[in-house]
Amino acid sequence: MQPTDIELLKTLCGIFAPSGNESALTEFLIDYVKTNQSKWKVRPELIYGDEFQDCLILKFGKPRASIFAHIDTIGFSVRYENQLVPIGGPEAETGYKLVGYDAMGPIECKLKEEEGHLFYDFGRGIESGTDLVFKSDFRESDEFVQSCYLDNRLGVFSALKVAETLEDGLIIFSCWEEHGGGTVPYLCKWMYEHYQVKQALVSDITWITEGVSHGNGVVVSLRDSSVPRRTFVNKILALAEESGVPYQIEVERSGGSDGREIQLSPYPIDWCFVGAPEDHVHSPDEKVHKDDIKAMVSLYQHLMKKL
Amino acid sequence: MQPTDIELLKTLCGIFAPSGNESALTEFLIDYVKTNQSKWKVRPELIYGDEFQDCLILKFGKPRASIFAHIDTIGFSVRYENQLVPIGGPEAETGYKLVGYDAMGPIECKLKEEEGHLFYDFGRGIESGTDLVFKSDFRESDEFVQSCYLDNRLGVFSALKVAETLEDGLIIFSCWEEHGGGTVPYLCKWMYEHYQVKQALVSDITWITEGVSHGNGVVVSLRDSSVPRRTFVNKILALAEESGVPYQIEVERSGGSDGREIQLSPYPIDWCFVGAPEDHVHSPDEKVHKDDIKAMVSLYQHLMKKL
Amino acid sequence: MQPTDIELLKTLCGIFAPSGNESALTEFLIDYVKTNQSKWKVRPELIYGDEFQDCLILKFGKPRASIFAHIDTIGFSVRYENQLVPIGGPEAETGYKLVGYDAMGPIECKLKEEEGHLFYDFGRGIESGTDLVFKSDFRESDEFVQSCYLDNRLGVFSALKVAETLEDGLIIFSCWEEHGGGTVPYLCKWMYEHYQVKQALVSDITWITEGVSHGNGVVVSLRDSSVPRRTFVNKILALAEESGVPYQIEVERSGGSDGREIQLSPYPIDWCFVGAPEDHVHSPDEKVHKDDIKAMVSLYQHLMKKL
Repeated sequence: MQPTDIELLKTLCGIFAPSGNESALTEFLIDYVKTNQSKWKVRPELIYGDEFQDCLILKFGKPRASIFAHIDTIGFSVRYENQLVPIGGPEAETGYKLVGYDAMGPIECKLKEEEGHLFYDFGRGIESGTDLVFKSDFRESDEFVQSCYLDNRLGVFSALKVAETLEDGLIIFSCWEEHGGGTVPYLCKWMYEHYQVKQALVSDITWITEGVSHGNGVVVSLRDSSVPRRTFVNKILALAEESGVPYQIEVERSGGSDGREIQLSPYPIDWCFVGAPEDHVHSPDEKVHKDDIKAMVSLYQHLMKKL
Repeated sequence: MQPTDIELLKTLCGIFAPSGNESALTEFLIDYVKTNQSKWKVRPELIYGDEFQDCLILKFGKPRASIFAHIDTIGFSVRYENQLVPIGGPEAETGYKLVGYDAMGPIECKLKEEEGHLFYDFGRGIESGTDLVFKSDFRESDEFVQSCYLDNRLGVFSALKVAETLEDGLIIFSCWEEHGGGTVPYLCKWMYEHYQVKQALVSDITWITEGVSHGNGVVVSLRDSSVPRRTFVNKILALAEESGVPYQIEVERSGGSDGREIQLSPYPIDWCFVGAPEDHVHSPDEKVHKDDIKAMVSLYQHLMKKL
Repeated sequence: MQPTDIELLKTLCGIFAPSGNESALTEFLIDYVKTNQSKWKVRPELIYGDEFQDCLILKFGKPRASIFAHIDTIGFSVRYENQLVPIGGPEAETGYKLVGYDAMGPIECKLKEEEGHLFYDFGRGIESGTDLVFKSDFRESDEFVQSCYLDNRLGVFSALKVAETLEDGLIIFSCWEEHGGGTVPYLCKWMYEHYQVKQALVSDITWITEGVSHGNGVVVSLRDSSVPRRTFVNKILALAEESGVPYQIEVERSGGSDGREIQLSPYPIDWCFVGAPEDHVHSPDEKVHKDDIKAMVSLYQHLMKKL
C-alpha cells in the first residue's frame, strides 16, 4: 500500500459516522471524489441529496454491476444519567476510549462495562441522545493495518481505489448497515429502475475463522445467515479463478451484510459478498492483512470489468 | 380536555379492532370525519378502499409531512379447546376481562394464565380463530385517563384533534402495527409516489421509564430499537424547543413503532416518534397524564405547520 | 391418486433444489408445462428468465387471484472440514442420507449430529459451499404418501393439478421460502403492477397438531406467526364451506410461509394459507394423507373459480 493510501484509510477510520448519523462521511466522500476524479480514468456522475438521505452514488459509464459499501459504523447512544446503549453490535470493554460531541463541546470519555450494562466515565454529564464512537488509534506494520472501523472504512477505501480505473458501474455508499438497515431498499429501487442493474457486489469486511485466515486473499462468501443465489456466486467464483488474484471461500451460518437487504428488496438483484477478513471484529483493534486489502481491490477491478 | 374529547377518546378505546381485524374502527373513522369535517379549517380528501385494505388516509391541502397513527390493538386469538394465543404482545393476567363475538353471539369471558399458557373461561366453547380483546373500563381523574388501548387510540385521538386545524399534510391510519406490520410499506409507497412526502411523524404511545415520566410533556424519541436519521430528529427537536410545548427526550434500546417499517420501506422517508408516555403498557390499565395528551396535540399542531 | 399423479409427485420429491439453488426444478417445471399444457383447459403464458431469477409464473386468462407455491427445500451447506450448516430448519439426525454433487462428482453421504453440531460422513472431502439435501425414499400406502420434501413439492404438485382446469389466475413458483425469502417481494410487485391482483393463496404444507389431523381435509389457516386480514380469511372460509370439500381450521402462534412476505410487500395483497397437513415435518419422513391431498386440489379448484 502506498503512503497516500494508508493516509486515506487512516483518515476514513477517524471520521465520525455511526448508523443514522453519517453526514460527515458523506460530505468527506463528495469532496474527495470532486478533488480526485480528474485523475480517474472516467469521471463519475455524483448522485446524492434529499432523495438519498446520507447515501452517495457514483455512476461510471454504462453500469452493468454495482458495488455496495456501507459508510456507517457501530457506536453508542447516551441514554439517561451515565448509561449507554449500543448502536449495532460493538464490542464493549471497560477502558475503551469513546469520542463525540454535544452542545457543550467535544467529548473524549471512557467506556465502563458492568454485568452487561454500559456506562461512560467523563468529567461532566453528556446530553441524552448523543452518539459516541471508538476513538481511532490507527496502527500500521509491514504486514497489517489496525484500527477501529476497518469495518467498513476498508470497504469504502477499496471502492475508492476501484473508482480510479472503473469504466462502467455503480459505486453505492449506503447507510445504517450496522443497525437495522433501511437505505438499501431505495438504493436497489433506484439502481434497478434507472439502469436495470441486477448484479451487486457487497464491499464489506468479514471474520477470521477456522476456514478464513490472514494473508490468504480476499474472501468470496458462499453464504452467511443469508444464502445468495448459487448461479451468481458460481459466476463470481469462476471470475475469481480466472483473475489469478488470491482468494478464500467462506461458508458461514451467521453474519450478514447489505446483501440481506438486497435479496429482500422487491427487485430481482443477485449479490455476492467480496471482502477482506479481519480479526477483533467490532472492537477498537480491528486488524487486516495488507495483502488481503490488495487482493480485494484487484479482484473488484477484475469483477467490475467482466460482470 | 373537554368533555367531548374525553367522550371521543372513551369511544375509540372501546372499538373492537385487533391487528388484522380493524374494519370496525376504519368505518368509525370514516363516519367521524364525514360528520365533523365541516367544522374543520380544511376539509380533507378521504382515501380508502380495496387498495388500502383497512387503512384510511386524510389528505389536507398540499402535504409536506405526514402523521402515522396505527388503529389496531393487541389481543388474543382462540386456538383449539379453551386455548388462547396472543395477537401482538399483550400483558396476560388471570382475571382480565375479554370480549368479542363469534357465530353464536357476543362473548364476555375471563383470561386464565397458567405457566405461560393462556386460556379463556366462558360458559360455552368459542369458535377457533375468534379474536378477543380487553374489555374497556375507561377511567378519568383530574390528572389521568386510564383504559386498555390508549395505545394507540390516543395516537388516533391526537391525530383527529390535529385534523381540526390542519392546512397541509397527510394523516395516515395504519393497521397491523402490533403484530407484524405490513400496511406501512404500501402506505409509504402511495405517499411518496403521489406527494413526494419525505417527512413522517409517528403518533403513538411510549413507556414511562427512569428517563420519561408522567406530566412532563410529550415524548420525542431519539431512538428505540431503530435509530432514525439524526438530521431529521434534530429538526424536530429544534421545532419542539421553539414551540414552547413541554416535551421529554427518550433514548431506548428496545421498543418499536411504525417508524421501523417507514425506515425499511423502499422510499427515502425520514421519521420521528412523537407521543405521550404511559404506564401499564399493553394491559387493561394503560394510564396517561392529561397534560401529556395536551402537549402531544399542541406539538403536532406546531410540527405540521413548520415541517 | 392416479398412478401418474404418484409418479409426478415422486419425481418432484427427488429433484435437487435447496434454497438459493433451485434452477433444476425451475427447468423441470418449464419442461413439464410445455409438455402437458396441450391437455389443459387453458394454455398458460410462461413467464420466467433473468428478471425472475429462478422463479416461474404461469398466467392463465385474466387473473383475479394467485397461487404461490415455493419450489425450494431445506438442506445443508458444507462448511469447512466435514462440517455442515443448515439451509432453513431441517431435522438433523445421525444416519440420515444426504445427496449432492461437487466438482469431483456425485455425493451420497451420511449425516452425523453431535451436541448440536452437524457433520457429514463420506469417503472423501466435499468442496466447501456444496449443498446437500435429503435422499428421497418415496413410500406409498393405501392411505399415505411419505418422503422428504413433501414440503413443498406437494404444494407444487397441487398447483400443477389445479393448472389442468384453471381458466383465470396466476400460478407463481417462488424460491428461498425455507431460508430468508426474497423472491416474493418482486413477484408481488410484478403481479400487482401487471394485473392488479390483490388475492393470494399460499399452497404449502402445514403441521399435524392437536387441532389438525390426518385425513380430515385440507387446512385453511386463520393465522400462524402472521395474522392475515380477517375479511379475506372469512371469504375463503365461506367458499370452503360452500365447496363441500373437507377442510380443517388452523390457529397457531408460530410457523410461517410466503404469506408473511406477501403481507410485508409494498402492495395491498390479501393472503390465506391453504394446504394439506403433514407429520414428521422437515425430516426425510414427511407423511401426508392422500385424502388431504385430494381435498387440497379440490378446494383450490373451487377457490380459483370463485375468487
